Amino acid sequence: MERILKGDKILLGTCYYPEHWERGLWKEDLWRMKKNGIVAIRVAEFAWNKFEPREGQYSFDFFDDFLNAAEETDMSVIFCTPTATPPAWLTHRYPEVLNADINGTLLRHGERRHYNYNSPVYRRFTAIITEKIAEHYGKHPNIIGWQIDNELNCETSEFYSDSDTGAFREFLKKKYQTLENLNAAWGTVFWNQTYTAWDEVFVPRKTASNSHNPHLVLDFYRFISESARSFVKLQSDILRKHIKSGDFITTNGVFANLDSHHMTAESLDFITYDSYPDFAYLLNADPVNSGDLNDRKWSRNLSEVRSISKIFGIMEQQSGSPGWNTRMEAPQPKPGQMTLWTMQSIAHGADYVSYFRWRTCTMGTEIYWHGILDYSNRDNRRLAELASIHQKSQSLSGIAGSVYEAAFGVLKDYDNVWDSRLDGWHRRLDEVSEAGIFQAAQLTHTPMDYVYLDDTARPEVLSKYPVLFYPHAVIMTEKRALLLEEYVRAGGTLVLGCRTAYKDITGKCPMVKLPGLLQRLSGADVVDYTLVSPDDGVITVEWEGTVIDTAVFNDVLEPLGNAQVAGTYTNNYYAGKGALIGNEYGKGRVYYFGSVFTRKTAEIFLKKLGIAEPYYPLIEAPESCEIAIRRKGERRFLFLLNYGKKPAAITFKQEVQDLYTGQSITGSLVLPAYGTGVYRL
Amino acid sequence: MERILKGDKILLGTCYYPEHWERGLWKEDLWRMKKNGIVAIRVAEFAWNKFEPREGQYSFDFFDDFLNAAEETDMSVIFCTPTATPPAWLTHRYPEVLNADINGTLLRHGERRHYNYNSPVYRRFTAIITEKIAEHYGKHPNIIGWQIDNELNCETSEFYSDSDTGAFREFLKKKYQTLENLNAAWGTVFWNQTYTAWDEVFVPRKTASNSHNPHLVLDFYRFISESARSFVKLQSDILRKHIKSGDFITTNGVFANLDSHHMTAESLDFITYDSYPDFAYLLNADPVNSGDLNDRKWSRNLSEVRSISKIFGIMEQQSGSPGWNTRMEAPQPKPGQMTLWTMQSIAHGADYVSYFRWRTCTMGTEIYWHGILDYSNRDNRRLAELASIHQKSQSLSGIAGSVYEAAFGVLKDYDNVWDSRLDGWHRRLDEVSEAGIFQAAQLTHTPMDYVYLDDTARPEVLSKYPVLFYPHAVIMTEKRALLLEEYVRAGGTLVLGCRTAYKDITGKCPMVKLPGLLQRLSGADVVDYTLVSPDDGVITVEWEGTVIDTAVFNDVLEPLGNAQVAGTYTNNYYAGKGALIGNEYGKGRVYYFGSVFTRKTAEIFLKKLGIAEPYYPLIEAPESCEIAIRRKGERRFLFLLNYGKKPAAITFKQEVQDLYTGQSITGSLVLPAYGTGVYRL
Amino acid sequence: MERILKGDKILLGTCYYPEHWERGLWKEDLWRMKKNGIVAIRVAEFAWNKFEPREGQYSFDFFDDFLNAAEETDMSVIFCTPTATPPAWLTHRYPEVLNADINGTLLRHGERRHYNYNSPVYRRFTAIITEKIAEHYGKHPNIIGWQIDNELNCETSEFYSDSDTGAFREFLKKKYQTLENLNAAWGTVFWNQTYTAWDEVFVPRKTASNSHNPHLVLDFYRFISESARSFVKLQSDILRKHIKSGDFITTNGVFANLDSHHMTAESLDFITYDSYPDFAYLLNADPVNSGDLNDRKWSRNLSEVRSISKIFGIMEQQSGSPGWNTRMEAPQPKPGQMTLWTMQSIAHGADYVSYFRWRTCTMGTEIYWHGILDYSNRDNRRLAELASIHQKSQSLSGIAGSVYEAAFGVLKDYDNVWDSRLDGWHRRLDEVSEAGIFQAAQLTHTPMDYVYLDDTARPEVLSKYPVLFYPHAVIMTEKRALLLEEYVRAGGTLVLGCRTAYKDITGKCPMVKLPGLLQRLSGADVVDYTLVSPDDGVITVEWEGTVIDTAVFNDVLEPLGNAQVAGTYTNNYYAGKGALIGNEYGKGRVYYFGSVFTRKTAEIFLKKLGIAEPYYPLIEAPESCEIAIRRKGERRFLFLLNYGKKPAAITFKQEVQDLYTGQSITGSLVLPAYGTGVYRL
Repeated sequence: MERILKGDKILLGTCYYPEHWERGLWKEDLWRMKKNGIVAIRVAEFAWNKFEPREGQYSFDFFDDFLNAAEETDMSVIFCTPTATPPAWLTHRYPEVLNADINGTLLRHGERRHYNYNSPVYRRFTAIITEKIAEHYGKHPNIIGWQIDNELNCETSEFYSDSDTGAFREFLKKKYQTLENLNAAWGTVFWNQTYTAWDEVFVPRKTASNSHNPHLVLDFYRFISESARSFVKLQSDILRKHIKSGDFITTNGVFANLDSHHMTAESLDFITYDSYPDFAYLLNADPVNSGDLNDRKWSRNLSEVRSISKIFGIMEQQSGSPGWNTRMEAPQPKPGQMTLWTMQSIAHGADYVSYFRWRTCTMGTEIYWHGILDYSNRDNRRLAELASIHQKSQSLSGIAGSVYEAAFGVLKDYDNVWDSRLDGWHRRLDEVSEAGIFQAAQLTHTPMDYVYLDDTARPEVLSKYPVLFYPHAVIMTEKRALLLEEYVRAGGTLVLGCRTAYKDITGKCPMVKLPGLLQRLSGADVVDYTLVSPDDGVITVEWEGTVIDTAVFNDVLEPLGNAQVAGTYTNNYYAGKGALIGNEYGKGRVYYFGSVFTRKTAEIFLKKLGIAEPYYPLIEAPESCEIAIRRKGERRFLFLLNYGKKPAAITFKQEVQDLYTGQSITGSLVLPAYGTGVYRL
Repeated sequence: MERILKGDKILLGTCYYPEHWERGLWKEDLWRMKKNGIVAIRVAEFAWNKFEPREGQYSFDFFDDFLNAAEETDMSVIFCTPTATPPAWLTHRYPEVLNADINGTLLRHGERRHYNYNSPVYRRFTAIITEKIAEHYGKHPNIIGWQIDNELNCETSEFYSDSDTGAFREFLKKKYQTLENLNAAWGTVFWNQTYTAWDEVFVPRKTASNSHNPHLVLDFYRFISESARSFVKLQSDILRKHIKSGDFITTNGVFANLDSHHMTAESLDFITYDSYPDFAYLLNADPVNSGDLNDRKWSRNLSEVRSISKIFGIMEQQSGSPGWNTRMEAPQPKPGQMTLWTMQSIAHGADYVSYFRWRTCTMGTEIYWHGILDYSNRDNRRLAELASIHQKSQSLSGIAGSVYEAAFGVLKDYDNVWDSRLDGWHRRLDEVSEAGIFQAAQLTHTPMDYVYLDDTARPEVLSKYPVLFYPHAVIMTEKRALLLEEYVRAGGTLVLGCRTAYKDITGKCPMVKLPGLLQRLSGADVVDYTLVSPDDGVITVEWEGTVIDTAVFNDVLEPLGNAQVAGTYTNNYYAGKGALIGNEYGKGRVYYFGSVFTRKTAEIFLKKLGIAEPYYPLIEAPESCEIAIRRKGERRFLFLLNYGKKPAAITFKQEVQDLYTGQSITGSLVLPAYGTGVYRL
Repeated sequence: MERILKGDKILLGTCYYPEHWERGLWKEDLWRMKKNGIVAIRVAEFAWNKFEPREGQYSFDFFDDFLNAAEETDMSVIFCTPTATPPAWLTHRYPEVLNADINGTLLRHGERRHYNYNSPVYRRFTAIITEKIAEHYGKHPNIIGWQIDNELNCETSEFYSDSDTGAFREFLKKKYQTLENLNAAWGTVFWNQTYTAWDEVFVPRKTASNSHNPHLVLDFYRFISESARSFVKLQSDILRKHIKSGDFITTNGVFANLDSHHMTAESLDFITYDSYPDFAYLLNADPVNSGDLNDRKWSRNLSEVRSISKIFGIMEQQSGSPGWNTRMEAPQPKPGQMTLWTMQSIAHGADYVSYFRWRTCTMGTEIYWHGILDYSNRDNRRLAELASIHQKSQSLSGIAGSVYEAAFGVLKDYDNVWDSRLDGWHRRLDEVSEAGIFQAAQLTHTPMDYVYLDDTARPEVLSKYPVLFYPHAVIMTEKRALLLEEYVRAGGTLVLGCRTAYKDITGKCPMVKLPGLLQRLSGADVVDYTLVSPDDGVITVEWEGTVIDTAVFNDVLEPLGNAQVAGTYTNNYYAGKGALIGNEYGKGRVYYFGSVFTRKTAEIFLKKLGIAEPYYPLIEAPESCEIAIRRKGERRFLFLLNYGKKPAAITFKQEVQDLYTGQSITGSLVLPAYGTGVYRL
């Protein structure tokens, strides 16, 4: 699926809550949207009571009326299943459907997402309401697609109810067949945790130091992901039976403990994302000193989304301040930022951008989550900015369906993502390297992709990248090791960081020399290693005349076979010993770096590997600007995004077409603060 | 009720715990008190077991004996009901009387205030014990007044027991009659929180992000206040039946989630306050850098108390270090501070000052809550300071019954007070403006009153103030809007801050132009608004040549009708736009300022409005000194309070009488560190 | 018992987990250990399932096989009872054996130490498994000793289960006989906490402010200690019936709320300690700015251990990074530190040092708790360092059985240790003075002992010390007061700090002049006192021309009888008043200092009292080096330990024999970073 909506233009939408406003407002609202460029709206994701106000009593009038209004105004509709907020009558009568905290205390009615995925009762209610809604509305001509639930695993991504324990046991029985296998996989011999009956096995429960068997926790996260996926598939299968051919199914957001890649592959047409870059400016943040690129780091999130669906949608694009009454206080987007963040989404592959929300809610927990319009409903500067974005988007003909162009890839996999959540040593590495490589890529204008691996990954997923980083593949499997070997053998360059491959798929450490399954490929032998104490200062490495920083962790390395020591430590007790091993392998090359990739270190890698700044022959832009290119066949569209508070001086070294104006330009231009441009190359 | 105790002098008392000491000590203690100026003592507020050592077994001997001792020593007694600490036998047999936390975990015996106001069982026990005590002791000649319970809503002001849920439902049925009304009022359509049966409604319970429907929470706070009030009224009604005519009923302390104004009006003769200014010096505080006036900010608390009862009592005045064994560590009051804080209380309207406590407790959680005497019972410097305070108080003839003289008022109401507790945006505004206006008033020697509004408020409550601030009346009602219009029309000056009137009484936002119900009065139109990010720096406003700071929030304003832009923003994206609107209305004037009132900004308002430093023709004093005047008819008494560690140079420009010495003085004088003076004008 | 193991050498051991490794590895491992100097291993402390895989099914084959391997390799074995980790089948079937948090939430299977000491069910299972193991393995020739359980009171030292409440009531009935006595002891009259039936008494349960009656809490800590002690005695009594004569019984670690002195005296042959100085370098610590001597402060812990058993063992000596997957991240020990920390242990009295653990665990929560070998099992630098330590230890003939030589003592007692846990004022004093005196002793090379007092202590325990500090004996008893008087009368010098003796054994404050029971001995009269606020700056004292700092608290003192004011305050409101009282008493002298002992203040005391730097005639060494002497009869062994990152210049002023090399040396030498030396004087 390469396209979300028909036509070749980027389309704009919004999130609308007919149930929040009187019927008399509907048409006025819809006409006003249309006038300002909105062509589609999402509705009904929290509207269960509108369909089933009491158990077993169904009602469709409300949204029938609303869809009539949409029809009259020629507004497209994305319809939602309402399972993110079970009604009070349901949770009160069937408390087993509620999620719980690790102490077993139930999470009650009063917020949202208080259910668990595994309660048979809730699955039954979910199936029925989905079926009822799909049956009734599935053929409506104005509906163009469906959203399942809303922000799965938001609020909390951990589930501790009794229903979850029951389902966890089934998950484990299927996975391990016997308790002997489970005990072996989880290393329960440690601290005498051996299970002798299935009913001794639980999801994590309170312990003295808030700690639990890490191998169990790793399987628990996998189990949560499977629970969410099967909950989505339950709905998707029902929807497919009833909806119109060509209408899409999606869900929105990317959250923890959920394999969105497999979920999308098995149940959805594409993923949509909820993009709120203003979070970088929360009052309790420190944007001046954050060192993390602030709103620009949403480009990292968008790269994650793109790894799921090359072309995706933004179901919720920030148009005003966020805010619950209890937290998440941030200023309004500055004039221009709404455009900037929209173009950021489009640059990374969004063909549909839907603003959250049409009008600021006048009530409830999200009373400060501002929409395009304020409470007052008056015309305001954000509405005017929407109209201006619409104008710009109209000029972007032909971009829809084009895909982001990356100069290198960063490998990830869910086993390691989840292991780093439960493992403090792993997490410290990941946090530095993920941020460092992304920031280096941004600031050197070297576009990157995330590439998710699993044991079924095909070689061609990798082979299109001349360079791949796999920063800390702590968990490694034989299949992945073979895939990496194949990639390098065929000419790829693979960059590995410290602590690679010291765990197996269960999260246990095989008794082998490190980097374990990648020792042959990397030619590196880890003879000693240590966390770096703040007391040690900065440990540096000399790499062919360049001094680079390390942080957090140091592997002390020796070369194997024909491998070479490319860099050596300059201080601490292992000064002079190997810090970077280079190894020719087949037609390719592997680097094993014994530490993490800070921003500066990653920049040096990009430069030494010859992939930094690929667009330098075309354009010069300051660090404050992101450059991104979407390509479709021979057509290439360059996005220029200035995140800075100050104007940016740009030089085009070739003639390009400014799509906003249609004019050809070359040479110098100034992009204003928060300014954007899109250029046909 | 203008007077607390008979006579025209300020009277001193203390808190005594006969049950903590052997009977042999009683008379010695009482004589020693009298010798040092104590004329009244409070007893029995935690003594339930002395009256009812086992369920249904009553005993009055202990306090009979004690009252005999009081009679022999001619000591007046304030007698308490003991309901703040239910006995172990009661809570163990009837756990339903206990309060709970939001998870439903009961708060157990072992501290104090562990009961809930709504348990029918506890109300029954409370009624019986109150009746028994009132019947038995009500006519004792040495008793002069009664205290109900002790520090209602201290320890916790939130109640989550099953009894509270039951009572909350009754409260809501009475308020809303139907669930349809309740659903509408609470905006339960948001996130599908609609209630379909009353037994689905609960006090807040645990949710995923510790968040709950804000409109429910607002009603929950109102409900807690009503619960406490009816609990007090239950006791007050019983006491009135039995106590001597002329004996007063009060309770002590001002705590959260309790409308002390209505409680006092309906059940008490006046309020008493527990004043602990030494909290400003807790070891985990930072008094040097606090920027909040430290102990002097208790004058703000006293102004709150004064808004409840013009003349009030201090039931607990700090005389030594505070401290539980687990927290609240602070140094002993310095020599002079006990006098200073006593005079601070009197200056604001206290006619009775009772020291907590006679002797430091030798046991229990408050083992470090020091009294006048140390554990050792020896004469000490604090006892000597008491004697000296007594001497001074003797000189203050005629002050009793006089009232504090304010130059302006600050409007408050419980709807907004409680809304700011549950709403982070509101709270940020309130905290800055409340502190800023108070500090500006103190430092410019411009005395202020707090004035509490509700829908029944009469115009004359406002009309005596030439200027009123209503900093952030987020919640506004039509009646209050009319009252404000009437005040201005008649010549008053009203100053409003940002975010005025964007919520209705339920805490929801009507879909109107801001400032909503006050748009006509203020002549202001809020066309845009934003929280101010630390990233934005300080946003300033130019007001007729003066540059003033804003903070936290900016409303962008346009004038309506004849209103004028009086001040404009100088920076951020709304530079040049309206920040302050002035509007002539009837004989008066309204200012709508689009931000908060920092100390400096508030000072400029006081000066521009011509009310700053009203006593400048009479006296010059440095910022470190508070000036307060109590007036009774033509008699005016000026209090001078030096909170500084250094002596303060004062100049009297008119002749006054120093009441401590009886001498007439004029010209310069030096007030020592922590020094005080009281002067007859 | 003066010796732990046979022979006159220091012996090395390790912790081995046969159940973690395949049987095929066992012999290889054991031979490899022997080759590198290991002579004993500890096994089975978490191995319950190996002995009783299902309730009532016992199996001994596994450890029979393993002991055969030990026999073949001539490896000594310390065998453990496995009660620290009850099996899943046990806790699932009998949840009453679990510990709980203060809310009553059970601490579940999944970590370790989740049981309570008082469950009759768990005591029954414990007795049976101990008996079974002792019967079966008790006579095995390779077993040399037994460890009971593992790290009692680690993870948590508080117990809130129902079983604990039941046992607490029994403990209290035995202690107080009647509720009247209990109510008096606990001062329950305060806040009306009086108990009228035993079933109203509970271990602490949740209250509004996480606070509880402090006198109850003090008894609760005593109860926890007794619970743990009786649990150990239960096992010890069983073991004694079955084990070989000469085999020792011990347990490992020193944790909170446990009187290890009495536990050792009644149930063990000696204590062993688990020493992890690398905790000083945790990534969330700040070793550069800690001001607490970092790893060197483990000498303070070792001094505590020495106060229990003059000669002790180290059951777990750090050999690699610590770390759970969730916390405790630290770098690997630097080359030399493993030796340094081993010698630190030996210097303070360890005759046996056992490294935790032979091989880093490849699984479970302690996956980062590194042993000598890494996961890979390869030879590494830590194994090489072990071999080198073995070489050194071989040179230390005759040291085993010698004891540490102290220049002065610091008195402690469990009543005060536990009171300071529950009492914030007390804790603040203790923390400063304990650290200050220890640091002063270390940095002036003045070795110190801790000496624990109770009411049964004999005078000769004290009389061997010329000087004793008893910094803040807040709780004092008549017997201890008499003992102190006897000590001073006979010529000792006693140094007391502020707040001495203001509480009785219940933690209540008698109504007496301070310092209460020590007023006569000290000649001091505390006429005023105060916590010192940060606002007050540093309050100093002039003591015969020397200005010393105070902190936290100041007692204002007057002399009684012949006592003299030796030091006076120089600032705050008590400037010029007494801060230090000196009193001749019998042949001795007492100092009462009205504050705490900071490092600098303690140094001045050591110098003024003439006990600082006792080894100056023998050796000069920089502050970075610890000097310790073990003595046996006339033989003295001097340990020199350089904790610094830099080499240290040493001068021996007398000829000594370097035991590592056997050579005689005198004059200058340089000890490298982390270097150690042991010298025969």
